[in-house]
Formats: sequence, structure tokens, C-alpha cells
Amino acid sequence: MKTVHNFNAGPCVLPKEAINAGIEALKEFKGSGMSVVEISHRSKDWEAVMGETEALWRELLNIPENYKVLFLSGGASTQFLMVPFNLFHKKAAYLETGVWAKKAYAEAKGLFGEAAVKVASSADRNYTYVPKQYDIPKDADYFHITTNNTIYGTEIHKDYDCPVTLVADMSSDIMSRPVDVSKYGLIYGGAQKNVGTAGVTFVIVREDILGKTGRYIPTMLDYTTHIKDGSMFNTPPVFPILIMNETLKWVKAQGGVAGMYKKNVEKAALLYNEIDRNKVFTGTAEKEDRSLMNICFVMNKGYEEKEEAFMNLAKERGMVGIKGHRSVGGFRASVYNACPKSSVEALVKCMQEFEKMLS
Amino acid sequence: MKTVHNFNAGPCVLPKEAINAGIEALKEFKGSGMSVVEISHRSKDWEAVMGETEALWRELLNIPENYKVLFLSGGASTQFLMVPFNLFHKKAAYLETGVWAKKAYAEAKGLFGEAAVKVASSADRNYTYVPKQYDIPKDADYFHITTNNTIYGTEIHKDYDCPVTLVADMSSDIMSRPVDVSKYGLIYGGAQKNVGTAGVTFVIVREDILGKTGRYIPTMLDYTTHIKDGSMFNTPPVFPILIMNETLKWVKAQGGVAGMYKKNVEKAALLYNEIDRNKVFTGTAEKEDRSLMNICFVMNKGYEEKEEAFMNLAKERGMVGIKGHRSVGGFRASVYNACPKSSVEALVKCMQEFEKMLS
Repeated sequence: MKTVHNFNAGPCVLPKEAINAGIEALKEFKGSGMSVVEISHRSKDWEAVMGETEALWRELLNIPENYKVLFLSGGASTQFLMVPFNLFHKKAAYLETGVWAKKAYAEAKGLFGEAAVKVASSADRNYTYVPKQYDIPKDADYFHITTNNTIYGTEIHKDYDCPVTLVADMSSDIMSRPVDVSKYGLIYGGAQKNVGTAGVTFVIVREDILGKTGRYIPTMLDYTTHIKDGSMFNTPPVFPILIMNETLKWVKAQGGVAGMYKKNVEKAALLYNEIDRNKVFTGTAEKEDRSLMNICFVMNKGYEEKEEAFMNLAKERGMVGIKGHRSVGGFRASVYNACPKSSVEALVKCMQEFEKMLS
Repeated sequence: MKTVHNFNAGPCVLPKEAINAGIEALKEFKGSGMSVVEISHRSKDWEAVMGETEALWRELLNIPENYKVLFLSGGASTQFLMVPFNLFHKKAAYLETGVWAKKAYAEAKGLFGEAAVKVASSADRNYTYVPKQYDIPKDADYFHITTNNTIYGTEIHKDYDCPVTLVADMSSDIMSRPVDVSKYGLIYGGAQKNVGTAGVTFVIVREDILGKTGRYIPTMLDYTTHIKDGSMFNTPPVFPILIMNETLKWVKAQGGVAGMYKKNVEKAALLYNEIDRNKVFTGTAEKEDRSLMNICFVMNKGYEEKEEAFMNLAKERGMVGIKGHRSVGGFRASVYNACPKSSVEALVKCMQEFEKMLS
């Protein structure tokens, strides 16, 4: 198998240990004579996987007892509507820090009109920063943020002290840094960056915020449905949950979230330092809001015409997935938990090599 | 690996060829140096899988050009609400032939109240038959049926001529028998019986029935969202779709749906004939409505106390998943497409052995 440095924005590089465990479970699940995709989701062996996966979430994020952990499907995009369906009563507030935050807000507005309020937006500078000055309406049922903006490479690095229920889409930075769950009412995300493969969505919800809308909530959109049945109201996405389970075991073996954070800080520093040092490149996000997960950079002034040449060199050196999103241009290296430091080093080396070629 | 005869009701036995292809793709996807769970869903190689999967659906079911084929998530349970969200205007009609049909109806009723009409139910005899005499309101926007009732072992064997748009949940008999898609407005189902592993939901929809409600439909619940983006509005459940792709290739290699149907008729006849012949057992469903997929039987009169003894013998002989659903009791052998004739023969042999033991 050829060696690649996988910087895909998600789906992305996963721990080899999780993939190998997936392969073994596909061959045979726990001595059952069947593949994991052939067993009953009501079997004791599968229920043990569900229970262990939840326990790993609780342990790794130190989730308080009054929170439930759910494994759903439909991706973060489905949470964009489940959040207002379950929490919206009179008013909702949204912070717009990128395309996904904008979509989350649009869904609330589609459902409840002007009662969904956008408190601030960084659209004025193409989402290259996180707005800091704004007022959250005190009568809002919740305040929705997107902690990491995959496309633009910005990240909210601290847990906000929020006067209303704080709801966070953590699709692209969950498990990458310590989070004080108790400051949030609800945290959700797609698994396909740091906690597994596409097809399962995690939700961490403080139970007391539910059941207050007085509206009919369609069964599958109602968090209480899934709480009641332990995320098994209907057949769960078995294989994606298995990969999540194995990915979390790997996170734990790496020293947990604190261990991941230390490595992520190191990896990001390596690459940001090179971007700042190298005269050929420049970063796109405000320094204080730079993401540890998605590192965006473009060609520096005077080197704009060399973009394709660098892309070709990077490809030759085994880099995959470094093309920036079309709304930013240039390059984006996604350095999620499972991206090894050696891949970041290879990219840095490639940038240095390119600088020398031009001098 | 020990030999088992897998009669699980779903998730269930899958073609070995599909599982093995899944293992290979997990190891490395198309010479990319990456696992299939690590590649971008926007890559050409993945888009090819999406396109091929749709083409296989179209070929195997002879789907007319004015129908779209979608790969979503959330299971059939999410379709219970997407169908009314997208199709309900003034009235909807439902046929209640089992628990899943009942849940589909309940969701429409939850959303639109008394305008959701139940035209008939077989609850009076524990769903052991399919109602035949009823009137469908001519002003209904659609008529919803569940073609196969996994729990009770009944099946609608023909494509109805319906005066209004016909909507069918085919979760547990899709691809098991020829279907005239042109008689339906919409067909949906979870993949985890005949077309793959849990985590992907198929929808076949005639485009002209959409866009007529005049209501706001939440983005992810709107079929037109997924039509517009070729089931890639957000990250699709990559691995479950890959397994679906490989399962459909296997169906094609078995002679397509006609080939599967021939084998399914043979398998079901083997087991039903034994149930009818063997004095120890009796079938639960009306003969004319017997399912080809889920074969339910209980102990005959006078043998009720021998149920556990038969279960123990069957387990000894390698049978898995034959315990009947608690609402029916006794036994259920689910003989989906990938269940080999040899497993049915083993079960029949076991039933004959048990009869001899008692005589």
C-alpha cells in the first residue's frame, strides 16, 4: 500500500487500530460465527458495545450524570433541525462563524422565522475570525455556536460562560481538546472527523432542558425517544458505532483528551510556525482564532501564480486532501486527532523544499 | 469460525461476497493508500460508487426514468415522518398490517391529526392476515402500505392498483421479488435486511409527487434537498453504502430480482411445507398472506410445553435468531435473500428430528 499523508477535511484519517478492529469484527464478531453486520442489535454482545461506547464518552469527556449520551444518524445537518424542534420555545440565538453555523441558523429561521436571531457574524471578513462583541438575548431559549469552522480554519478555544442554554456543534473538534461539558446544555456532531466514520451522530444533552416546548415533536426527531430506548428505538448504525467505539478506545490509549490536546497543539504549532516563517505562504485566519484542526493557508503576495506548482509538488510527496475549500482557496491541512505528527512534518518539509526551489 | 444458520430478523445474514468486499475496502480503497472510511466523499472514486449503486438499483428493479433513487439515513422510522412532511396536503390513508405500519400511521396522525385515516387494520387477529376489503378515500394524497410484516410474517404479494399515490415501506422484502415500481409513488426502507447493513435508507420516488404541500419542509427532511445533491447534501453513510453496492452486485450475479425470487419461493416452500406436515408445529399467518421473508410458527396443540426443548435442540444444531417476536411467541425464521437454502434445510431437518424425538 502506498504511503500517503491524509489531510482530508472529513471523512479523514482514522486510527489504524480502529480500522483493524473493524476488519476483525467484519470477519467475525466475538466468536459468534457471524460478521458484526449480521448480528442482532438486540443481542447482549451488541448491547455491550453500546454500553461501552457510552461509558467511553462519559469517561473521556468527564460528562456529568445529568447528561445523556446519544448515538443517532442524519449527521450534524439533522441536528440543525432537531435542536430547534426540541429546544425552541420563544427565541433562539445563533453565532454565525461559517457555512455550517449559517446553515444551522437558516434551519431555525426556516422553522420559526424572525424569532431565530443571529447575534453576530464574521461573514464581513469571509469568516476568518470569531466575533467577540455581541449580546445574547436574555430571553433566548438557547445560544447556538459552532466551535470549529472546518472550511475557514477558525475555532472557539474556550468554553463560554453563557447566560442561556449553550448549544454547540462540535463536529470537527470534539475529543481534540478538553471541554467542560457542564457549561453546555447540548453538544452534537457527526462522527466522521475525530470519533469515527460517517453514519453516526453523537449528542450529549442535559436532560432538564428537554420536554418544554408544548409542541408535537415527530418521534424520530424527539431526543426523549432516543433517551428512552438507549439510542435503539430503531436499528442503530451498527458498523459506524463499532468504529466509534474503537476510535474512543484509541483516544483513551493516547492519554485521553488531554493527551490528544497536547499532540494537537504540537502538530498545529509545527505547521502554523512554518506558515508564518515561510515567505511563500500566509495563513488566512486571525491568529487568536486559528483552529487546531483545520489549518488554512494561501500563497503569499507575489507567489500567487505558484499555487498549482506547490500543489503538484505536495501531491508528488504524498499529500492528500490539502486543496482549500473553494470559498477560501489555497490550501487546507486538516490535522485531526488521528493525523500523525510525521504527516505534518512531511508537509512542513515540502513547504520548505518549495521555498528553496523558488529562491 | 463456527458454522451457524443465521435466521436473524435484521440485521441479518449478508452475502459473504459483500462482507469480503467491505473488508478489502477497509484495508485499502481502490489503490488510494487509504481505507474507504478515510477518503473524501467528494472524491471521484467515491462518486463512482454512488453512481454505480444508483445504476444497480435502476437496473435490478427496472426503475423508470421519472423516479429518483436516494440513499439517506435515519431508517424507515425517519421515513414515517418524511413521507407526510413531503406528501401530505389534505388527507392521508394508511393500511395497518403490523407494528411498523402502525408506527407509520401514528407519525402521520401525530403531525396532521384526524386527517390521517386508517382504512383497515388486522389488529383484530394479531396481524396474522392482510386486510383485503376497504375503501381508500379518493381525496387522499397517498395510501401507505407496509409490504412485508417482519414480526407477524405476512406479506402483500402483489403490486396494488391504487386510485391515489401508493407509498410502500419495503424494508423487509425489497429485492426479494419483482416489483412494478411504476405502480408506486414512493418506495422506501432500511437497508439492513436484503440490501446491506444498518445505517443507510433507500428511497425511490416519482419526482412529480413532490413540492406540492406549500409548507416549509426542514432541509434534511425534504426529498428535493437530497435529489438536488445526489444524496450528498451532507456526508453520506459511506461504509453502509459500500456494503449496499456490493450486496446489489451479488443480487445481480444471482440472476437479479427474478433469480432471488425463484430461490426465495423454494426456500419458503421447504419450510412452510414442513410446518404444515410436522405435527409438532403450526404456522401463525393466514396461508394466502404468508411472507416469503419471515416465517412464523408456534408449537401445535398438545406440544406447547416443548417449546423450550425445541429451542435448545435448534441452538445445538447451530440455528441463530429463531426466537419469535414476543408479540407472536414461538419461532420465526427470517429467510432473507442471503440466507442459503442449506440453512433452511438444516432447520427442516432439525424440526423432523424433534418430531421423531417426541414420537
